[in-house]
Amino acid sequence: MLIIGERLNSTRKKIREAVEQRDAEFIRGEVEKQVAAGADLLDVNGGIAGSEVECLSWMVNVVQESTDVPICLDSADAEALEQALPLCRKRPMINSITDEPERFQSLLPLIKKYDAQIIALCLGESGPPKAVDDRLELAESLISKLTKAGVALEDIFVDPCVFPVSTGPEYGTAVLTAVREIRQRYPEVRISGGVSNVSFGLPLRKLVNETFLVMLMAQGLDAAIVDPTDSQMMANVLAAEAILGRDEFCGNFLKAFRDGKLTA
Amino acid sequence: MLIIGERLNSTRKKIREAVEQRDAEFIRGEVEKQVAAGADLLDVNGGIAGSEVECLSWMVNVVQESTDVPICLDSADAEALEQALPLCRKRPMINSITDEPERFQSLLPLIKKYDAQIIALCLGESGPPKAVDDRLELAESLISKLTKAGVALEDIFVDPCVFPVSTGPEYGTAVLTAVREIRQRYPEVRISGGVSNVSFGLPLRKLVNETFLVMLMAQGLDAAIVDPTDSQMMANVLAAEAILGRDEFCGNFLKAFRDGKLTA
Repeated sequence: MLIIGERLNSTRKKIREAVEQRDAEFIRGEVEKQVAAGADLLDVNGGIAGSEVECLSWMVNVVQESTDVPICLDSADAEALEQALPLCRKRPMINSITDEPERFQSLLPLIKKYDAQIIALCLGESGPPKAVDDRLELAESLISKLTKAGVALEDIFVDPCVFPVSTGPEYGTAVLTAVREIRQRYPEVRISGGVSNVSFGLPLRKLVNETFLVMLMAQGLDAAIVDPTDSQMMANVLAAEAILGRDEFCGNFLKAFRDGKLTA
Repeated sequence: MLIIGERLNSTRKKIREAVEQRDAEFIRGEVEKQVAAGADLLDVNGGIAGSEVECLSWMVNVVQESTDVPICLDSADAEALEQALPLCRKRPMINSITDEPERFQSLLPLIKKYDAQIIALCLGESGPPKAVDDRLELAESLISKLTKAGVALEDIFVDPCVFPVSTGPEYGTAVLTAVREIRQRYPEVRISGGVSNVSFGLPLRKLVNETFLVMLMAQGLDAAIVDPTDSQMMANVLAAEAILGRDEFCGNFLKAFRDGKLTA
């Protein structure tokens, strides 16, 4: 399970303030917390109106001062990406391409030029997907276009587009079923999810996120954009890996227990 | 989600001692704890060698002194069941019939006579099931025989037979896949699981059980034999119900939160 740390996101007030003030110390603290908690990649979002190009590159440089963990550039701005991509010392990931023609066309050349892994978000011209079928059609369209352009299946991370269950009782099941179907149809493609979206508008968001992530893993999720400092969630992930037979002799689970890392 | 409280089990040392000493006070304490925590049924196991007939009936009477919550008689002993079934004031459940011919033949008349709901455990003459296909064949055989005998599909709770993942990395996935397949093939049948078996031999058993239960719910589980006093698990169940769209407007989840019941 690939854990993409979500905390370095400029839509969060504290991050935005730190980025605007070029407070490298604060950003490094967020990096270190996430890496210590087990993040495999760090999502970096510098989406501050009018200054994303500078902000994203500044963040990438600051992040790389304290870690070698690869970066997932969270932007749809081709110019910001064009500046930030060459700064990445490890193979970058981009979050995200969609099936909207303009966004697709502007990001595809960057994916190719920098050999980036890509999150393919199930979102198209007609707006956010509603039912399972919308998600499957968008996934199929994105996978087809990306592979035709030469992107390898295992470098595509399909994101079924998670919505808050507080706004529609069918949204949770639609995503769970979509993940299962995508897994069956495309064994080689990776599947990722912006898990935390599920809990907007509800109390105890961590509890809901933890529960949803485990449910998604049972359906075949490979990667998740989550807060790795949620220790209950990370403990659930290790337990789920053991249950899914991806952790031989439960070795990682037992080691984490012995090391006192399963503090949930 | 039907929560079948597992604590009144004479294979547990404290329960066996209480039953042997006819310590009704202790048993009532276990009843009240589980009912307060939200158990929908109470599993009652009086399997003490040589005295199950008396022990099971005594336990049923003690349980019913403090609750109206229905009882799930956890026994394969036809004589013990024949004595205990007429004592049940609510519609009883029996845990469990299997595909072993002798056990099947001895329990079937009791299911019919007392209109009991029945847990159909995927276990046959050739021993415990190994892969998914073994479980599906056993489920099919049990469902076929039970419905031919006049048992309604919705009164059959198929149990895919959970084994410890510490003894085989494939056991978790086999059960998860079996639940998904049984759900697809038999929309009306109920699916239950002895969830806690998954974690034998591992530390942090509650964490593993909580994680597995949520994964099973994503596949279509209807009922679980678990410890309802595990508040993290009960919180996960409420969150999972909201995610699965079984909790309109997340009403139960929000009410439990307001009532301070989501203390995980």
